Amino acid sequence: MPQTQTSSRDVRYDVLGIGNAIVDMIASADEALLHREGIAKGGMMLIDEARAAHLYGVMGPATITSGGSAANTIVGVASLGGRAAYIGKVKADEVGAHFVHDIRASGVSYATAQASDGPITAACYIFVTPDGERTMNTFLGASQNLSTADIDEALVASAAITYLEGYLWDPPAAKDAFRTAAKIAHAHGREVALTLSDSFCVDRYRAEFLDLIRSGMADIVFANESELKSLYETSDFDSAVVALREDAKLGVVTRGELGSVIVGRDRTVAVPAARIDTLVDTTGAGDLFAAGFLHGYTRGADHETSARLGGLAAAHIIQKIGARPGVSLKELAEQNGLSV
Amino acid sequence: MPQTQTSSRDVRYDVLGIGNAIVDMIASADEALLHREGIAKGGMMLIDEARAAHLYGVMGPATITSGGSAANTIVGVASLGGRAAYIGKVKADEVGAHFVHDIRASGVSYATAQASDGPITAACYIFVTPDGERTMNTFLGASQNLSTADIDEALVASAAITYLEGYLWDPPAAKDAFRTAAKIAHAHGREVALTLSDSFCVDRYRAEFLDLIRSGMADIVFANESELKSLYETSDFDSAVVALREDAKLGVVTRGELGSVIVGRDRTVAVPAARIDTLVDTTGAGDLFAAGFLHGYTRGADHETSARLGGLAAAHIIQKIGARPGVSLKELAEQNGLSV
Repeated sequence: MPQTQTSSRDVRYDVLGIGNAIVDMIASADEALLHREGIAKGGMMLIDEARAAHLYGVMGPATITSGGSAANTIVGVASLGGRAAYIGKVKADEVGAHFVHDIRASGVSYATAQASDGPITAACYIFVTPDGERTMNTFLGASQNLSTADIDEALVASAAITYLEGYLWDPPAAKDAFRTAAKIAHAHGREVALTLSDSFCVDRYRAEFLDLIRSGMADIVFANESELKSLYETSDFDSAVVALREDAKLGVVTRGELGSVIVGRDRTVAVPAARIDTLVDTTGAGDLFAAGFLHGYTRGADHETSARLGGLAAAHIIQKIGARPGVSLKELAEQNGLSV
Repeated sequence: MPQTQTSSRDVRYDVLGIGNAIVDMIASADEALLHREGIAKGGMMLIDEARAAHLYGVMGPATITSGGSAANTIVGVASLGGRAAYIGKVKADEVGAHFVHDIRASGVSYATAQASDGPITAACYIFVTPDGERTMNTFLGASQNLSTADIDEALVASAAITYLEGYLWDPPAAKDAFRTAAKIAHAHGREVALTLSDSFCVDRYRAEFLDLIRSGMADIVFANESELKSLYETSDFDSAVVALREDAKLGVVTRGELGSVIVGRDRTVAVPAARIDTLVDTTGAGDLFAAGFLHGYTRGADHETSARLGGLAAAHIIQKIGARPGVSLKELAEQNGLSV
């Protein structure tokens, strides 16, 4: 596989993200509410429309912001100054229109056809507990209808990296879109990145994720510590890292306040976390870490610098509500001596 | 007029708010954008549907939160532990449903009939500049259809204070609803509070506002410094305060970081502002000051304590995005020794 992260003449986008296009409904909640509703704290659960209506009914006043894991990452890349594009499906409803507004207003190229019928735009009901931890309940809605027809070959071919979220394994048609995009990317000498998304998601699709990594369909793997442990069914972080080094060309593992570990074939680098003042809401931490890392990587920065940029973007996002940056991450990077 | 702020047996609500039911679309913006769009910084401009679509198109990624001046105040009263109710009209659309969800989830009693046709739920496009100042552009939409038919006599009669926003003077039918509510309140021995809302709003309706105050239709008047100066067409704050003392039974004047001045017939008290760490977004500052003051007042606290409670609530709201409290203001008040 050629290394395409150094800019090539026909690369129009640094990163193309493909994922479930979701709008976040974010509310404060106490632990008792999670307990009453039988919600496992810290993870992402899939819910149906009836459960969505129920949870919306019991949740407190909510802030609505655009979300979606890969979409958050792609907006982060754009905010850092990268050339970014996105594929993901909403319905042509009020909430879907807002998703479209936000991603375009963030400087991301986005042209996926909106569903005119079928379920509503996907919504994620996010409960933020006083410790800043977020617990997500996702109704996939219209995002489930993403299919191979939505994968624009010329777009994929023009992106240095195609970044795919593991959550795409949940809607059946999206899985085919995922594979199609990865094949197109490789056929054009581009790289493919995969995020494992969530430890429960890894639990659902462990064999398939391992196959994607071992077969080389995914060149770069993003995971947090619990996802990585889930992937290799171990409670020992170090042995999971050893296994990842065997399987993946490049692994990017985040460990919350412990920082990150970049697992290359030749070398593993541990990078400390960026300092924060107050943890407000962890929503988007992993997504924004990926944004920073990918931006550094596509600009040819070394792994440590890329990881520091990831850590800086993650530190910004967890000090505010929601998973979309509130400031220019490019300026933030410059202020922190991390221009790439 | 009997003083009803001391609890009476048949008072079911401490404060009933009546206002334009609006959802806020809040985005960061630089001064250049305001200049390009010809928007006067710091105020509230009324816009039509076409202008709303244009501004939404040029605005950055936006957070959607429930808003509306009196609604923000009423949610603040509920968050402080007061018994609160609200009257205001949305359309039965997705955004309207969210307004309804939020105000009820905030513990406010709310039962105004939703419009099934006509314009969409009112939206306020708020540009927050790097200095934290907010500039508002409001499409009144469905809120314009609030009419006397929406004024539930039993509800008004059961509230110690009916709190009305000056913005209600903009939609013609709402003005009648305002007068009807004030008459019902007084007929049942309750008090009526009026907020002047915005200096441009005062400019539009100066004579009518003065008449409301001088005729005694409004017992308590809330204003910020620029609204008060606009009301009396003077640039001299002290002479405006003297004029207010002549006209109003009780005046509550906010001066931003200079604190507030409570203008009673017998005594004027100046109260310093609460300390803040970082100014994020001034949206809702006046609304939440009114919430704190009204809560103290209805609980029988003295003017200074009520003003301190107002300042505390305002300080909370300007350190976050949006005009709805992110924490329990009751707990915040307790932590600051301001339980009433």
